[in-house]
Amino acid sequence: MPNDVASKPYVLGVDLGGTNVRAAVIDRVSEQIVARGENIPSRALDGVLATAGQIATAAKTALHQGNIDPERVVGCGIAVPGVIKGREGIVSYAPNFKDQWRGVQISAPVQESLGIPVHIGNDANLAAFGEFRFGSGRGVRDLVMLTLGTGVGGGIIIDGKLIEGATGGAGEIGHMIVNAGGRGGNSSFGSLEGECQRDAIIERAARKVQQGRKTVLAERTDYDRFALTPALIAQAASEGDAVAIEVFEETGYYLGIAVASLINILNPEMVVIGGGIAQAGELLLDSIRRTSNANALRALARTCQIVPAQLGDNAGIFGGAALALAEVVTEG
Amino acid sequence: MPNDVASKPYVLGVDLGGTNVRAAVIDRVSEQIVARGENIPSRALDGVLATAGQIATAAKTALHQGNIDPERVVGCGIAVPGVIKGREGIVSYAPNFKDQWRGVQISAPVQESLGIPVHIGNDANLAAFGEFRFGSGRGVRDLVMLTLGTGVGGGIIIDGKLIEGATGGAGEIGHMIVNAGGRGGNSSFGSLEGECQRDAIIERAARKVQQGRKTVLAERTDYDRFALTPALIAQAASEGDAVAIEVFEETGYYLGIAVASLINILNPEMVVIGGGIAQAGELLLDSIRRTSNANALRALARTCQIVPAQLGDNAGIFGGAALALAEVVTEG
Repeated sequence: MPNDVASKPYVLGVDLGGTNVRAAVIDRVSEQIVARGENIPSRALDGVLATAGQIATAAKTALHQGNIDPERVVGCGIAVPGVIKGREGIVSYAPNFKDQWRGVQISAPVQESLGIPVHIGNDANLAAFGEFRFGSGRGVRDLVMLTLGTGVGGGIIIDGKLIEGATGGAGEIGHMIVNAGGRGGNSSFGSLEGECQRDAIIERAARKVQQGRKTVLAERTDYDRFALTPALIAQAASEGDAVAIEVFEETGYYLGIAVASLINILNPEMVVIGGGIAQAGELLLDSIRRTSNANALRALARTCQIVPAQLGDNAGIFGGAALALAEVVTEG
Repeated sequence: MPNDVASKPYVLGVDLGGTNVRAAVIDRVSEQIVARGENIPSRALDGVLATAGQIATAAKTALHQGNIDPERVVGCGIAVPGVIKGREGIVSYAPNFKDQWRGVQISAPVQESLGIPVHIGNDANLAAFGEFRFGSGRGVRDLVMLTLGTGVGGGIIIDGKLIEGATGGAGEIGHMIVNAGGRGGNSSFGSLEGECQRDAIIERAARKVQQGRKTVLAERTDYDRFALTPALIAQAASEGDAVAIEVFEETGYYLGIAVASLINILNPEMVVIGGGIAQAGELLLDSIRRTSNANALRALARTCQIVPAQLGDNAGIFGGAALALAEVVTEG
């Protein structure tokens, strides 16, 4: 690494959402967040320059909070919720923003404002890259991550590199078909997302309540399916509620089928399960592991750990930082 | 490329099978096979050194046939039917050979005998690498290949590099789960191989005959299911036999589900369909394309061609040559 890079002890990570932007400065040695800029509105519908300005503000807020000179920051990586052509720094499609940001250059105006190199990547891909570099995947070369939430996202690291695909669309693991002809999400019928996204989990529980199964979920929601949440179901499961346990077992089955296929296709050392739904914890992980082990080639399953994510809400921020660091090493 | 490499106009490719070894010299400029060494027995059950000797003999036969000095050959790549750790040049497992070749060094004795650099890779992976470098995939950077035969094999090229995985097991596309709980092959129930390997195709046809469906297959096989072959079914289909057409439609459906998932996971520019079964041609390809387009994300499906392989029986040989060339460029 050239001297001028070695003399820059910090890196910036930014998580751009449809509502807010969050930025953080990460110390390259301790690998900890040392300063934050949060609660900055994204101004998602006000156009690219407005949002770029908010990103820069979040970054500058973090620098100011940590009293850090931008000269000491090696670069900045931004996790964007959309399809990204990282090499060209272009957003191909980001549905939460004005006119879906089709073919938008977001890094250039941010770079101009901050005076440091700025790179962008897809948020789910960068969550995987963050776990790889700073979280559960430290020391691993080949990793797949699934992020479970409103949808199901993913990211793939092969031989230490984040896979982008031909047009920036790689890692759309939520759109794998795990149950051909099954439940549809925003994707095809029987996709992993269709079977395992937040709404699918709630629907699974709601049907069991409707069928008259004995469960604490019925009284706790007063038989109102709109009152059901994954957290409520996870809580009931942790108390031993058989119906709630079944919901996570069934969800874990489809996740395990996808994980088994991914292990057979990519032979990773590690599969990381993250996102809000993953907070159901060992119950869900056990079901995933059991199904995956039963369906993956034994030699490949044996050499692949299936583990929870470590970075929680900060995965995107750490992923942005990991991207910025990877670009420095490549350029230097 | 350094001068000494540029001065070597040939490369050797070897396809090691359980019965025979085939070698060929490929001209690096014309990219054509200019000499062959064929019908050399593998001596698969006589131990590593015996087989290594046969590989060297096949290579020397090809060199002799083309009257080519080994000094003018840049390297040799061998396609091995097994799990390979290419970086270490080790066969982890090759079930057709003596004691399953667990942890065997096959390249060193061949290299010693030939006096040129020798590299090894998995045969299905190298078929993909051959198509990428010399066949349907010329000019493409991201490619997935499926090889349909007795089993279903695969290989993945990302950004111009053949993917090996953490332990050399990547590309086991035949073991993807496309129909959870469905038909089993040598793999899990509902795997792509279970649904689409040679025996599955025959079974699909046999059941229709058994059900009394009207088809030329019944008389042509005299109701003997052991007389059914994929070639016979393909012939009947090409003549418009509705039952035979159905067999390939149904087979193509499961292949299309796998291809859709692969497109969503990896965002390749091209999916190549090869192997003996693929000779059913457009009928099978159409069914694959239809199902894939219906199940993959539209933006990713639109930028991915699904095409037949071009190299036929020579895919392994060209793949070996491609591997040897890739290693030269990396080393040089």
